[in-house]
Amino acid sequence: MNIVTDEISTSMAAGSWIRKMFEKGRELKNTFGEDAVCDFSLGNPDVPPPFAAKAALEEIASNAVKPLGLGYCPNAGIPYVREAMAAYLSRQQQTSVDASHVIMSVGAAGAMVSFFRAVIEKDDEVLVSAPYFVEYGFYCGHFGGKLRAIPALTPDFTPDVEALAKAINPKTRVLLINSPNNPTGCIYSEEVLKKIAALVDAENERREREGGRPLFLLSDEPYRIFAFDGCTVPPILPLTKWSCVLGSFSKSISLAGERVGYFLVNPAMPGAETLISALILTTRTLGSVNAPVIGQRLAAALLDETVDLSVYDSRRRLMAKVLSSAGIEFPMPKGAFYFFAKSPVEDEMKFVDALLEEKILVVTGKGFGFPGYIRLSCSVDEKIIARAENGFKRAVERVLA
Amino acid sequence: MNIVTDEISTSMAAGSWIRKMFEKGRELKNTFGEDAVCDFSLGNPDVPPPFAAKAALEEIASNAVKPLGLGYCPNAGIPYVREAMAAYLSRQQQTSVDASHVIMSVGAAGAMVSFFRAVIEKDDEVLVSAPYFVEYGFYCGHFGGKLRAIPALTPDFTPDVEALAKAINPKTRVLLINSPNNPTGCIYSEEVLKKIAALVDAENERREREGGRPLFLLSDEPYRIFAFDGCTVPPILPLTKWSCVLGSFSKSISLAGERVGYFLVNPAMPGAETLISALILTTRTLGSVNAPVIGQRLAAALLDETVDLSVYDSRRRLMAKVLSSAGIEFPMPKGAFYFFAKSPVEDEMKFVDALLEEKILVVTGKGFGFPGYIRLSCSVDEKIIARAENGFKRAVERVLA
Repeated sequence: MNIVTDEISTSMAAGSWIRKMFEKGRELKNTFGEDAVCDFSLGNPDVPPPFAAKAALEEIASNAVKPLGLGYCPNAGIPYVREAMAAYLSRQQQTSVDASHVIMSVGAAGAMVSFFRAVIEKDDEVLVSAPYFVEYGFYCGHFGGKLRAIPALTPDFTPDVEALAKAINPKTRVLLINSPNNPTGCIYSEEVLKKIAALVDAENERREREGGRPLFLLSDEPYRIFAFDGCTVPPILPLTKWSCVLGSFSKSISLAGERVGYFLVNPAMPGAETLISALILTTRTLGSVNAPVIGQRLAAALLDETVDLSVYDSRRRLMAKVLSSAGIEFPMPKGAFYFFAKSPVEDEMKFVDALLEEKILVVTGKGFGFPGYIRLSCSVDEKIIARAENGFKRAVERVLA
Repeated sequence: MNIVTDEISTSMAAGSWIRKMFEKGRELKNTFGEDAVCDFSLGNPDVPPPFAAKAALEEIASNAVKPLGLGYCPNAGIPYVREAMAAYLSRQQQTSVDASHVIMSVGAAGAMVSFFRAVIEKDDEVLVSAPYFVEYGFYCGHFGGKLRAIPALTPDFTPDVEALAKAINPKTRVLLINSPNNPTGCIYSEEVLKKIAALVDAENERREREGGRPLFLLSDEPYRIFAFDGCTVPPILPLTKWSCVLGSFSKSISLAGERVGYFLVNPAMPGAETLISALILTTRTLGSVNAPVIGQRLAAALLDETVDLSVYDSRRRLMAKVLSSAGIEFPMPKGAFYFFAKSPVEDEMKFVDALLEEKILVVTGKGFGFPGYIRLSCSVDEKIIARAENGFKRAVERVLA
C-alpha cells in the first residue's frame, strides 16, 4: 500500500543521489577519521555566534520562569522585536518601513514557504536565475507551483535579464532573486537589479491594464552581510513597489539551528495590507504559529552584531589560492561563503568522484540546476582548506589524464 | 489585482468573526482596563515553566558561543534529544520505540502539517469527532485535504464510533483523535480507543485485500499530562500498528512560544521507515528545516518536569462551581484545561454577546464545529474565574428572559 503520496515518493527518489553522496562522505569519515576528510559540502555556519549571545541568553533565562515567560506571542512576532526589525530594515533597505510590514518567521525558509502558500495557485511559475538553491523548488512545489530556472551568464553568474524577460508569461507569479547568491557568491549590481525591477514594473503595468495577478519580486537575502572586497548589497525596496525581502539570522549570527527569519513587505505595494494579513494566516496555519520566542529575543538583542566576517574573508582568499593553484576556474565570489567552480571535465560527476578519492567532499552543480560545476563551502577551518590543495591538484590531473 | 490566492482570501474572510470577537475584547480591555475583563478565550498556558527551566537555559547559554553552538541539527532533531524522547515515549506509550521513530518538530502543529504533506492527496478526507480544534482544517487544507467532522455523543462528547465507522470511505486517509480533548476536556476511555483502533484495523485489512492506501490513526496529544480526578490517558500505540502520536511541550512545560513538538511513528507500522523518511523530507522542505535547537535542548532537560498541575485542577474545580451556580450545563472535564458548556439558548451567539456585555470573553462552539455551546479556557487566574460568577448569572438570566 502507498504509505506516502506519489509526489513525495518522487521527491524522495530524486534526493537519493544527495543522500548517497552524504553517505559516502560519512563512510569516508568513519573509515579514515573526521579529520582526514576535507568536507566542503556543508552550509552550516561554523563561526561562533557573537560573544554577546551568552549574556543575551542569560537575560532570557532570568525572565523565563514566570507566567507566559516562554508563551505564545502574536503570530507575526513579538511586538518589540518587530519594532526593532523595522528600524533595522529601514536603514538596510533605505526605505521607511514600520513594524506592521515585518513578520518574524521560522528561518528564511519558513518565510518563503508562508509567502508561496499565500500567493501561489496551481501551475504558477516561480522564475529564478540558475544556479539556484535547490530547496526553492520544494518550497513552491508544496502548493502546486513550478520553479522555472533561466541560466545565468557565465563566467560571473550575473542573471540574464533579457532571458528572464522573455520567460515571463501570465503564469509567472514570482521572480525570485538571491544576492549574495548561494551557490555562486555573486552580488548583483545595482544596474542589474534596476533592470530586473523595471522588468517587474513593466509586466505589472501590463497586467493592471490587461488583467492578471501581480508579479512579485522576492529577494532572498540570508547572506546580505557577507560582502567582501568593499562590495555592498544594494537594497531592493527602493527599486520597485512590487518587492518583498526575506532573510534570517542563520548566517549573520550563526543562529541557523534556532530558526529565526523575517519577511518584509514593501509598504508601497498596492494591497500590502492584504498580503501581510495573508502571511500572518499562513504563518499560523503552516504550523509555525509564531517564530521561536527565545530565538526572536536573541536575534533582537544581537541586531547590531555579526559573526567575525574576517574569518570568512580569510578563508575565501585561501580557497581562491588553493583552487587556482590546482588550475580550477571560478569567478572570485564577492559575497556569501561559497565558490562555484568549473569542473575541468564536462561531466562534473567524474570530478566529484575523483575528489572523493582524495577524501574531498563537494556538491555537484547539478544540485543547483547548473551542471558542469561544483560548489564548495567555506564554512570550514583554514587548515582543512590548505590540506586539500594537493588533493585538488591530483583530482584535476586524474580527470584530465 | 488579486494579491493573494482565492483560497487564502476565503480563509481570511472565514476567520473574520474570530477577529471581530478578538477586537471587541481588546476594545473592552482598552475602555475598562485589562483587569476589568474576564478573558476565558485564550489557550496560552499561563502557569510558569518549571523552575528548572532557568538553570537549563543558563547551561545552554554557557555552550552557545562556540562553533555550531546554535547551528543546524539533523532535520529529524538533535540525536541525544531523539534518544531521550524515545525512552520517554516508550514508557508513555507502553511500546518500545527508538530514536529513529521520533522526529522533533516546530510544535505539535508543525508535526501535523508535515504529516499531512507526506500522506494527503487532493480531496483526501481527515475524519475527526466534533467539536474539534478548528486549525485542523487549515493543516490538511494546505494540500487539498478535507476535514470531515462527525458530531460526538452528548452530553459527554465521547466520539460516536458507529457514526465514524459509517463515514469511512476510500478517500478517508486519516482518522484524527485528540484526547484529552480541546475544547471539551474529554479523555477517551480505553474501551472507546479500542473500538476506534479496531475500526482502523478492519478498514486497513479490507484495503490490503481490495487495494487502497492505508488509513492512519493519528493521535494529537498536547494535553496528555493534563488528566485529573485520577484519570489516565491510555496509550494508543499498543492498540493498532497504523497509529502515530504527536504532541508538544507547549502546555506541559508552558513552552508554547518556543515551538517544540514531536511526531512518533508506530514501529510496527508496515512502511514505517518510508513514512519517517517522508516526514524528514517534509519537515525540511516546509521551512522548519529542524525544530528550534534551544527549545529542543530545553525540552530534553525538562523531560521529567511539568508545570504545577494542581493550579489547573484548582481552577477547574472553581470554574465548575461558578458555571453550576449560574445554571450553565457542562460535562465535568477530566483533562486539558477547557470547559465546553451548553448555551442556555440555542443560538450561542446571543449568549456570547450577553457575556460580552458582562465583560466576559469566551469562544463560540461554532468555532469548534459544534454550535449551541461555548468554550472557556482555565488558563487564567482564579481571581478572574471567581469575579466572573455574577456576570455569568446575569447573562444567563438576560438570555432566558
